[in-house]
Amino acid sequence: MMKQIEGGVTAAKGFQAASAATGMKYQGRTDMALVYTEKPAVCAGTFTTNVVKAAPVLWDKEIVDKGGAVHAVVLNSGIANACTGEEGKKLNYVMAEEVAGQLGIKVEEVLTASTGVIGMPLVKEELQKGAELLAKGISDDTAAGLKAAEAIMTTDTVSKQSAVMVEVGGRTFYVGGMSKGSGMIHPNMATMLSVTTTDVAIAPDLLQEIVSEAVEDSFNMISVDRDTSTNDTYLVLANGESGITVERGTKEYDAFKEAVVFVSTELAKQMAADGEGATKLLEVRVINCRTKENARLLGKSVITSNLVKTALYGSDANWGRILCALGYSGAEFQPEDITVTICAGDREMVLVKDGVAADYSEEVATQLLRQEKVTFICDMKEGTAEAVAWGCDLTHEYVTINGDYRS
Amino acid sequence: MMKQIEGGVTAAKGFQAASAATGMKYQGRTDMALVYTEKPAVCAGTFTTNVVKAAPVLWDKEIVDKGGAVHAVVLNSGIANACTGEEGKKLNYVMAEEVAGQLGIKVEEVLTASTGVIGMPLVKEELQKGAELLAKGISDDTAAGLKAAEAIMTTDTVSKQSAVMVEVGGRTFYVGGMSKGSGMIHPNMATMLSVTTTDVAIAPDLLQEIVSEAVEDSFNMISVDRDTSTNDTYLVLANGESGITVERGTKEYDAFKEAVVFVSTELAKQMAADGEGATKLLEVRVINCRTKENARLLGKSVITSNLVKTALYGSDANWGRILCALGYSGAEFQPEDITVTICAGDREMVLVKDGVAADYSEEVATQLLRQEKVTFICDMKEGTAEAVAWGCDLTHEYVTINGDYRS
Repeated sequence: MMKQIEGGVTAAKGFQAASAATGMKYQGRTDMALVYTEKPAVCAGTFTTNVVKAAPVLWDKEIVDKGGAVHAVVLNSGIANACTGEEGKKLNYVMAEEVAGQLGIKVEEVLTASTGVIGMPLVKEELQKGAELLAKGISDDTAAGLKAAEAIMTTDTVSKQSAVMVEVGGRTFYVGGMSKGSGMIHPNMATMLSVTTTDVAIAPDLLQEIVSEAVEDSFNMISVDRDTSTNDTYLVLANGESGITVERGTKEYDAFKEAVVFVSTELAKQMAADGEGATKLLEVRVINCRTKENARLLGKSVITSNLVKTALYGSDANWGRILCALGYSGAEFQPEDITVTICAGDREMVLVKDGVAADYSEEVATQLLRQEKVTFICDMKEGTAEAVAWGCDLTHEYVTINGDYRS
Repeated sequence: MMKQIEGGVTAAKGFQAASAATGMKYQGRTDMALVYTEKPAVCAGTFTTNVVKAAPVLWDKEIVDKGGAVHAVVLNSGIANACTGEEGKKLNYVMAEEVAGQLGIKVEEVLTASTGVIGMPLVKEELQKGAELLAKGISDDTAAGLKAAEAIMTTDTVSKQSAVMVEVGGRTFYVGGMSKGSGMIHPNMATMLSVTTTDVAIAPDLLQEIVSEAVEDSFNMISVDRDTSTNDTYLVLANGESGITVERGTKEYDAFKEAVVFVSTELAKQMAADGEGATKLLEVRVINCRTKENARLLGKSVITSNLVKTALYGSDANWGRILCALGYSGAEFQPEDITVTICAGDREMVLVKDGVAADYSEEVATQLLRQEKVTFICDMKEGTAEAVAWGCDLTHEYVTINGDYRS
């Protein structure tokens, strides 16, 4: 039995968090976060597929690939430490090393993640100061988790957390995570950083398998601007504190996988809704599709279309743009079979029936499109596969934010 | 010897054009255009790869595939006749039929093209009125070609024409074209419509081969918003009036291909510069690349990045976004080898050297980025292939235009 609870990375037993303000780039706010478990945790992760990978991504990949146990994740916002060459790798090492020194653990037990401006170097002195503050501030409070989630925000307007408590076989485990991401979001992975913690015991390979699968239907199904970042990182740490062991083919496995998918999907939706400049969350459900892969392609094509996104912004039921975006997705289908339904609040209305305009009211459509969450259901009528993708509208504010982000 | 001249579709001998105002959707402006050759012309074309194809695209593809001779192309703006089902096919037939009737030719000798709002039906009575007006107005004047180019504009702010005169072996031929396109532009083909005429004599297969090749380096290398339209159409008509025959392996072949590539590239650049809401033309030259295909992928990835486009709008030398876009293009490369140079006017400056920030002046970079045409040269240092892509900035005006296009 899964229950959504308040909290994030400190929800699972034995996990602590901290945040600190170093002034490395931002003033008057926190810009470093730490997630820590005294008991060593196995870890899994997925990372950006961008050829240009930031220094922390390279560092984490090596640790995750080796399957080593870890104790901590240190994150900073404001500076992405991408395209910074050998110097960037050194400063990433410093970030891990300083935290390791403060916590009395090994440097290779510290994962790192950075987000912010590409090409700018981290500052050694500030990293040292940050590590000291973080180590002093660790706590397993819900508030500490929230503050960590706040410290990693860049252009995000709200912090993102999700946590669940799961009862299985009379015992309880927790999965909780935080993430950030608002622009340069087109995960494959999305600049999203996400750290999820859990207190189950699990083999690293199995954890990686579950994480990789969860990503396909959550983080990889959102987009703000089609720009796959250099820094995308999704880390999951499992420290075994709950006493529950997850093995393949057990009810614990099913319960744990459901929990990881739930938390990652919740975080993904929160990121899409908080897309840079966004005023609305766009959800596209592709149903009755021939294959799952096609359903994903079709859904992602609609949520990434600038024309669909601007029409949504303008509350214009320009369904032709939806059909157009389905059409160039790369998936084959019969245009004359498609039905498109718009849902918002508790109302729904068919816009397109069998590939042509349905007899609908533009006035009602506009009312539905003015809601904060709008769903388009695209019924392909050719099979049973389905997928859901999440995006947001493209607004004047997005252009304003990104026309002048660095200054 | 090739010389750029004034004019468009009426530059080649024997081609006439006309325009008409039917009021089908737009008021107070022309909305139909005709290109006509008394002498039959062989034709070639490339069309949208979108699964959802507008009625005129289906009509033209059939005629072009059959290799039949044609006499006319009729085009309308305001209504795209896409996603209109069987009724749309019938009205497209009416459009061709009315023109054929007026000109005394067969319906299958008339190609059609539509651009505008998806899902709206054409109006039979207006098509009849338009055909009558077009037939009355045909002329081989340069002005008639210009007016035809104006009649097919939608959100375009300027009409697009290009023409060349080519001397080869003491004789002269002409290639001239018009096009429209401003939004939903990501050719594969881009909503671009383009009609090019020439007075050489050429076999339809050879013409198609040249046209398909020319498209790869011209129309398929531009993007305004990554949205591949349902209506993209590029038609080339050759009527043989110059007395020059183009056959493979001759100097006429080389001269003709050069002329077609030139005209299509000029038209493509004009479309990119006139992208919806655009204030600047963005040119990305990818040089010293391993393969031509990679060079195209890399160039297109940069010009389609919303983050690069907004940074250009804001005159912010945010080169990290360029590297990021190269990185997710799908092409493999060594990030630590890349050099990025910005060129504008007669000045240039290196922004990125060997994958990291060069020692450049942000102030000078901003000055260069304020020019109307900005070129980024991405030197991959791994081979000899190159490609050029054209796009534009992403502006507040783009969002305004597309947030409320239908009304």
